[in-house]
Amino acid sequence: MSPIPQPPRRKPSPVEWVAEMLCEESSYRTVYHRPLHDEPMPAIKTLAELMERLRAVIFPGYFGHSDITPENMRFHIGANLDAIFRLLTDQVRRGFCFFCDLDGTGDCKECEEKARRLAGEFLMRLPDIRDALAEDAQAAYEGDPASRSPGETIFCYPSLTALTHHRVAHELHLLGVDLIPRIITEMAHSATGIDIHPGATIGRRFFIDHGTGTVIGETCIIGDNVRLYQGVTLGAKSFPKDEDGMLVKGIPRHPVVEDDVVIYSGATVLGRITIGKGSVVGGNVWVTRDVPPYSRLVQQGPGGGGSCDGGGI
Amino acid sequence: MSPIPQPPRRKPSPVEWVAEMLCEESSYRTVYHRPLHDEPMPAIKTLAELMERLRAVIFPGYFGHSDITPENMRFHIGANLDAIFRLLTDQVRRGFCFFCDLDGTGDCKECEEKARRLAGEFLMRLPDIRDALAEDAQAAYEGDPASRSPGETIFCYPSLTALTHHRVAHELHLLGVDLIPRIITEMAHSATGIDIHPGATIGRRFFIDHGTGTVIGETCIIGDNVRLYQGVTLGAKSFPKDEDGMLVKGIPRHPVVEDDVVIYSGATVLGRITIGKGSVVGGNVWVTRDVPPYSRLVQQGPGGGGSCDGGGI
Amino acid sequence: MSPIPQPPRRKPSPVEWVAEMLCEESSYRTVYHRPLHDEPMPAIKTLAELMERLRAVIFPGYFGHSDITPENMRFHIGANLDAIFRLLTDQVRRGFCFFCDLDGTGDCKECEEKARRLAGEFLMRLPDIRDALAEDAQAAYEGDPASRSPGETIFCYPSLTALTHHRVAHELHLLGVDLIPRIITEMAHSATGIDIHPGATIGRRFFIDHGTGTVIGETCIIGDNVRLYQGVTLGAKSFPKDEDGMLVKGIPRHPVVEDDVVIYSGATVLGRITIGKGSVVGGNVWVTRDVPPYSRLVQQGPGGGGSCDGGGI
Amino acid sequence: MSPIPQPPRRKPSPVEWVAEMLCEESSYRTVYHRPLHDEPMPAIKTLAELMERLRAVIFPGYFGHSDITPENMRFHIGANLDAIFRLLTDQVRRGFCFFCDLDGTGDCKECEEKARRLAGEFLMRLPDIRDALAEDAQAAYEGDPASRSPGETIFCYPSLTALTHHRVAHELHLLGVDLIPRIITEMAHSATGIDIHPGATIGRRFFIDHGTGTVIGETCIIGDNVRLYQGVTLGAKSFPKDEDGMLVKGIPRHPVVEDDVVIYSGATVLGRITIGKGSVVGGNVWVTRDVPPYSRLVQQGPGGGGSCDGGGI
Amino acid sequence: MSPIPQPPRRKPSPVEWVAEMLCEESSYRTVYHRPLHDEPMPAIKTLAELMERLRAVIFPGYFGHSDITPENMRFHIGANLDAIFRLLTDQVRRGFCFFCDLDGTGDCKECEEKARRLAGEFLMRLPDIRDALAEDAQAAYEGDPASRSPGETIFCYPSLTALTHHRVAHELHLLGVDLIPRIITEMAHSATGIDIHPGATIGRRFFIDHGTGTVIGETCIIGDNVRLYQGVTLGAKSFPKDEDGMLVKGIPRHPVVEDDVVIYSGATVLGRITIGKGSVVGGNVWVTRDVPPYSRLVQQGPGGGGSCDGGGI
Amino acid sequence: MSPIPQPPRRKPSPVEWVAEMLCEESSYRTVYHRPLHDEPMPAIKTLAELMERLRAVIFPGYFGHSDITPENMRFHIGANLDAIFRLLTDQVRRGFCFFCDLDGTGDCKECEEKARRLAGEFLMRLPDIRDALAEDAQAAYEGDPASRSPGETIFCYPSLTALTHHRVAHELHLLGVDLIPRIITEMAHSATGIDIHPGATIGRRFFIDHGTGTVIGETCIIGDNVRLYQGVTLGAKSFPKDEDGMLVKGIPRHPVVEDDVVIYSGATVLGRITIGKGSVVGGNVWVTRDVPPYSRLVQQGPGGGGSCDGGGI
Repeated sequence: MSPIPQPPRRKPSPVEWVAEMLCEESSYRTVYHRPLHDEPMPAIKTLAELMERLRAVIFPGYFGHSDITPENMRFHIGANLDAIFRLLTDQVRRGFCFFCDLDGTGDCKECEEKARRLAGEFLMRLPDIRDALAEDAQAAYEGDPASRSPGETIFCYPSLTALTHHRVAHELHLLGVDLIPRIITEMAHSATGIDIHPGATIGRRFFIDHGTGTVIGETCIIGDNVRLYQGVTLGAKSFPKDEDGMLVKGIPRHPVVEDDVVIYSGATVLGRITIGKGSVVGGNVWVTRDVPPYSRLVQQGPGGGGSCDGGGI
Repeated sequence: MSPIPQPPRRKPSPVEWVAEMLCEESSYRTVYHRPLHDEPMPAIKTLAELMERLRAVIFPGYFGHSDITPENMRFHIGANLDAIFRLLTDQVRRGFCFFCDLDGTGDCKECEEKARRLAGEFLMRLPDIRDALAEDAQAAYEGDPASRSPGETIFCYPSLTALTHHRVAHELHLLGVDLIPRIITEMAHSATGIDIHPGATIGRRFFIDHGTGTVIGETCIIGDNVRLYQGVTLGAKSFPKDEDGMLVKGIPRHPVVEDDVVIYSGATVLGRITIGKGSVVGGNVWVTRDVPPYSRLVQQGPGGGGSCDGGGI
Repeated sequence: MSPIPQPPRRKPSPVEWVAEMLCEESSYRTVYHRPLHDEPMPAIKTLAELMERLRAVIFPGYFGHSDITPENMRFHIGANLDAIFRLLTDQVRRGFCFFCDLDGTGDCKECEEKARRLAGEFLMRLPDIRDALAEDAQAAYEGDPASRSPGETIFCYPSLTALTHHRVAHELHLLGVDLIPRIITEMAHSATGIDIHPGATIGRRFFIDHGTGTVIGETCIIGDNVRLYQGVTLGAKSFPKDEDGMLVKGIPRHPVVEDDVVIYSGATVLGRITIGKGSVVGGNVWVTRDVPPYSRLVQQGPGGGGSCDGGGI
Repeated sequence: MSPIPQPPRRKPSPVEWVAEMLCEESSYRTVYHRPLHDEPMPAIKTLAELMERLRAVIFPGYFGHSDITPENMRFHIGANLDAIFRLLTDQVRRGFCFFCDLDGTGDCKECEEKARRLAGEFLMRLPDIRDALAEDAQAAYEGDPASRSPGETIFCYPSLTALTHHRVAHELHLLGVDLIPRIITEMAHSATGIDIHPGATIGRRFFIDHGTGTVIGETCIIGDNVRLYQGVTLGAKSFPKDEDGMLVKGIPRHPVVEDDVVIYSGATVLGRITIGKGSVVGGNVWVTRDVPPYSRLVQQGPGGGGSCDGGGI
Repeated sequence: MSPIPQPPRRKPSPVEWVAEMLCEESSYRTVYHRPLHDEPMPAIKTLAELMERLRAVIFPGYFGHSDITPENMRFHIGANLDAIFRLLTDQVRRGFCFFCDLDGTGDCKECEEKARRLAGEFLMRLPDIRDALAEDAQAAYEGDPASRSPGETIFCYPSLTALTHHRVAHELHLLGVDLIPRIITEMAHSATGIDIHPGATIGRRFFIDHGTGTVIGETCIIGDNVRLYQGVTLGAKSFPKDEDGMLVKGIPRHPVVEDDVVIYSGATVLGRITIGKGSVVGGNVWVTRDVPPYSRLVQQGPGGGGSCDGGGI
Repeated sequence: MSPIPQPPRRKPSPVEWVAEMLCEESSYRTVYHRPLHDEPMPAIKTLAELMERLRAVIFPGYFGHSDITPENMRFHIGANLDAIFRLLTDQVRRGFCFFCDLDGTGDCKECEEKARRLAGEFLMRLPDIRDALAEDAQAAYEGDPASRSPGETIFCYPSLTALTHHRVAHELHLLGVDLIPRIITEMAHSATGIDIHPGATIGRRFFIDHGTGTVIGETCIIGDNVRLYQGVTLGAKSFPKDEDGMLVKGIPRHPVVEDDVVIYSGATVLGRITIGKGSVVGGNVWVTRDVPPYSRLVQQGPGGGGSCDGGGI
């Protein structure tokens, strides 16, 4: 086999010229992902199918096949779980290999086995995830005067969408799965405008009304019966750097929100502070210090004194 | 026919075990939707097609077939309307049956007839919906210095998307259609970040610039020539509860915004208050009391005195 | 050929009646787009494919085919570029024709040639666009304590999505392409909640964390190493009108943000002011005056003094 | 609501003119199907899905999900059967209504109940259908020197495709289902060129090699261990007419082929005759009289004496 | 812009090597189609859509939308016709350009105008095409003892499929359209095994039972009430060559079949001969001479004397 | 984890009952394919894509991207070849594993390496395959009076479709690839009615007119310039069996057809005989003995003496 024949030295077309420029190693070096051992990247489309199937398993009749009966439920849930197990094992492995690849030390065989084990463990947690989401639906129904039944919130409230993704992603995060949980929550972020980091710990009966622009950071701890509105930030106040000026990653830096707290729209709560049990944070309020239990924080403004009763719709 | 053969009593696979756990009646009871009379759930995908066809009917040439002429317009609009009538009748019936199902008292035959009648009535309102949206496009063009023609706003402004969904959903809401209007506005919410409850009453020539995070509540009444920016909340201040501690649903609890009002980004307006004709509410301002006509409300801050001239882009 | 046979004068069905109403010239006049010379409208679906292919060309292995090697890279990049050239030429022409059509003076032949030339020029800028995005990925990695590698930010951070769309759209905008840049940035706006006007000038190593609700106006000029958070508005303060009361379009009216500035969530910066090099603008702060270099602007509120260290997550 | 506005009496476009011509009652009368009670027509696409699912149920691992294990088989088969039951009930009802519609006397409620009952009965016959097809695969393997395993014939032999469709369609035919069996066999006819009427009775271990152009008529009775080749016709010899000159439908008019017969390519066997057990009919032979058991029929031709040993490949 | 950078002179991968070999001008010269003026090739997928829409227009309710009523028929037929006109104009132009390209003398502008004119003329013939197909359906019903109604033959008989394609293709052929008619009949050939050249002239009430393998040549002329079976060849007997040894194209070389003829399965009729009115040609018979009216031609064979009564099923 | 909970011993639904019956090991044993090492089955859909891409590579501009120029040809051919290499490697491995699985002795690692090597070798033969097909197109053009250019035959003649599949499948067969060649030719068989076994050896400039029902057996050897018509069988005359009564597989049993032979429609040629150079076999003729060079074999029949000039169309 002869060496690659050289293309004629005519003036290239723009397409030919740009193609060569973009194939220069100096150009593609930092933006090129080369899979180790041919492991493909996690696939957003597959993860979307995975979430569809999980939704059908968690809320039978609401999503997926609509005529589920006690007689056929076992078949449809079983077939979906079998597919979920297969898809998830594969994606989890790709998630591990994404980082293996980057440092070049990965052993994909190990990733494979680990992925299969973790996917199995994740499945075993589904009954608990369903229980938590059932309570979230009840909380959404009780927390929104415009809602007519818990079923309606399962079917079309962004809060339930965001929490379904979060509760799934958080379990995967706890199991040590790489990358996949982040993609799963980004899917919900794109669809709902609610950005919850998979590391955040969230209690029972949680509800976010409207939700667009609400952000919940990686090390947040949120109690039971908490209600948020749109545009709420539970963020970090400062990012400590190490001696090299690089951010120190992973330290607790987001708020602790205790049980029964309500935080109205546009409020900003920053740093590892505690919002005490039963407190109400008014709309657009800025909080960077601990707040004792049962407090009422409100903003004063040109259009009238703040109130802690509301701020939702 | 013999009873169901019992599976062998070997150790189950994780998939088998979880499938059984999720088929326990105690697990699925509150998250399972069983259709009465085999009525399937409303389908988001079908409603998306419905909105596509409505857009093609309202804005011929902009959406759907692009080479519409006066000669063939009748055929394409007629064929789309016929499909809309059929799809809408079906989805409206499913919306009714969703709640019938929940209380178990529904008569699906009645839902069918009611759905067909209401779909017909909705069609008759399309000429008015189109007129209103034509004026909204003009308002968007006049209100945004970056806009080059009303046609451009029809084609790609989130405000027009949100209003097309809202004006359709609001008419369905007025006709007493269940669930469907809410899903239609949630579709726009997901795509644009603008969350308008189908119950809100909105006047002519309305424009929301950028729009992400803007929320307009169920009982809002908005006059003509009103302009909002991103992150504006027109919300409730407090949620009265009945003697059982449950929220009282349906009472007027959101602002009345009179003609010619401008509300800049991030402003929060709460409760059944009135923003008087011609007023301007500055960015990030918090308002919970009535505002007399032609007022100027601004925020003072560390970076300079507020201004009522602007706040958009 | 006889005249059109007249339909029977029976009572029309609702569909027939509405179809006729919507085909009245007085009804459709302002909402009907008639293509000049059969030029179809720009197609959002095609532009989505175009962006997919651009992403595959800019970040080989991350998007598009996942097993790209130095041996086959040339083929896949070349084939994608060839398709991009064709699709882009076509869409750019449609963008020109959209406005030609409106004033009725267009010569589509000219649009065709101009479109082909501009598409070629755009391709030549791709190596620079890739360089800029590679630095943006590095900045995202360094700016977010939750990020594990620059590759992760390429793969799933909304900031990179928004910037890929913006940097492409901005080059097209500089080349004088009509409408298409705006649609490309609206696609990113819908997916991420980040609304950057294609006219905005943005320096190197730019990062927006979370991003939902952030708005960057048409005439903004942003330096290098700038970091924004969710809900930040870089907007206009006022819109001068001409003697006819119409907005004057195109004048500089948005902020200049110099190098190394950080602006935290919910801050609003309005008007043609300058935020000096190295300044920090705290969360929810409202700024309408020039800010000298290395300033710290914070909000005081009920929950504690503001801080300039943070506000992200 | 006013009468339908009359279109302007200008010269119509060709599209307008033809549309009116085709909407004249005299033109569409005999080619227009109006569904009674809104029952749609049987859908070929749905029947294709039905056959896909049946294939997956009958040959697990060969078709449908490829990694079927004893642990998950129950779920996938069950879910497929549930879908088959639903799809089949619906299509069978449409089949009945197709003929109801034509004479205008149908009661669709009855069709619905009958369809559900028959679909259930059909399901109960699946184990037998599977047994028969398993033997057909074995016969194909044994009958074709080019075949390497029975599994290969399941996977890609046209004979197995045609027989899967036939054995399913024949059971439906025996249950009295209208139209659907015919469509199912036509699907196989189009894919394989083998045209078996659903009424034909076919024994065990049947094999058709190559098969293109082979035709098996409605009242054929075929024994066990029969083998045919391409282009064989088992047809009717004459069609008795009644006193009105119309064909008498349904009388036995096709051959009886006893056990262990082989019929080579291009042979034509016509009329209610019997090909006796163990006979061989040579290629291109024409048979219109009874053939006693163990006969050898061959054609004499210019290229050599016929032989009864072969004719296949 | 520099010349195309030369790839490194390393040993190529097989893909690289083959790519270069196949890009040698000497390799691709005779198998490469270069469109003149960027005219793409006719698209089989588009022609399939065209045929779908034609079927919906010709047989309303059977194909396309299934709930067509006298009220909405106008809209659906009109919208389909409008699409047909556009698609057909485009494909016809491509058909012309395919041959223009080959001799390099084409003027695509002319092709465009000619295509539009011919597509319009074709539309005007649709009412006649429908009439002919309605009679074909009646003939199929009367000619097949297994058929239960003419509607059933419209819905699922291969003969009607083949004739729908043929009658459409033949009109296009008569109008002088290039290539497209041939593709349309090849689509039917692939689906049914019936191969009718678009040039063949076919009378009213034509029926082909089973049909696989039946071939009808370019210059055939077939009368009314003719019935064929599977495997019938109406072919040419010899192909005269010119002095250069090339086939002379276009001269009459296929049979004339007069009214009321029946030709049974496998018969071969060759050359410009005439099968006289009312004749019957038995199965597998070979005919190369004129046959007087009301003849009976049968084959004698080892399995019994031929008969002219039948041969179908 | 407890044992699998037992379903309640109520009367099963038909779906439940049949599901259990079909999951009995005795029922599924012979029709169940269990992949060894999770190797999925070859996928017909993927092989269809493979053939699409091969066609685009062999006939650039005719199939795949239609505006191929000398400038961009390299990219599109290279990208297609890269995909072909990947898809083919995968499918070839599955083909090997299909038989490994059956005897349980396979080592999939070896299959993987062998598959990659063979796919590479196959690629190297593509230039020759293209040359042969280019000559086939020329032969089709010259052999059919109805054809207007060789390009037309590439684009829409079934003969070219069947030969493209055959020449590809035959090379794979020569390389020792299992199962895949058979599936590839079956795809052509289904689309064209032409059934060529991948083992058949076929010379240059081969043409089959119409083709439906033509069968070419596994051990056929066909010279150059051969032309066949529809319904021709080149088959085996007898199948020797071994002492166990099983067919002996693989021995030469089909005809040798020398250069320049023409065989007209419906002719049957059986056994390892030789049709001498330049011979003509008339339509429907039956041949089982050697035929000397330049022979003319014709059938005598009731409709006239046979002729050797024709039989095509």
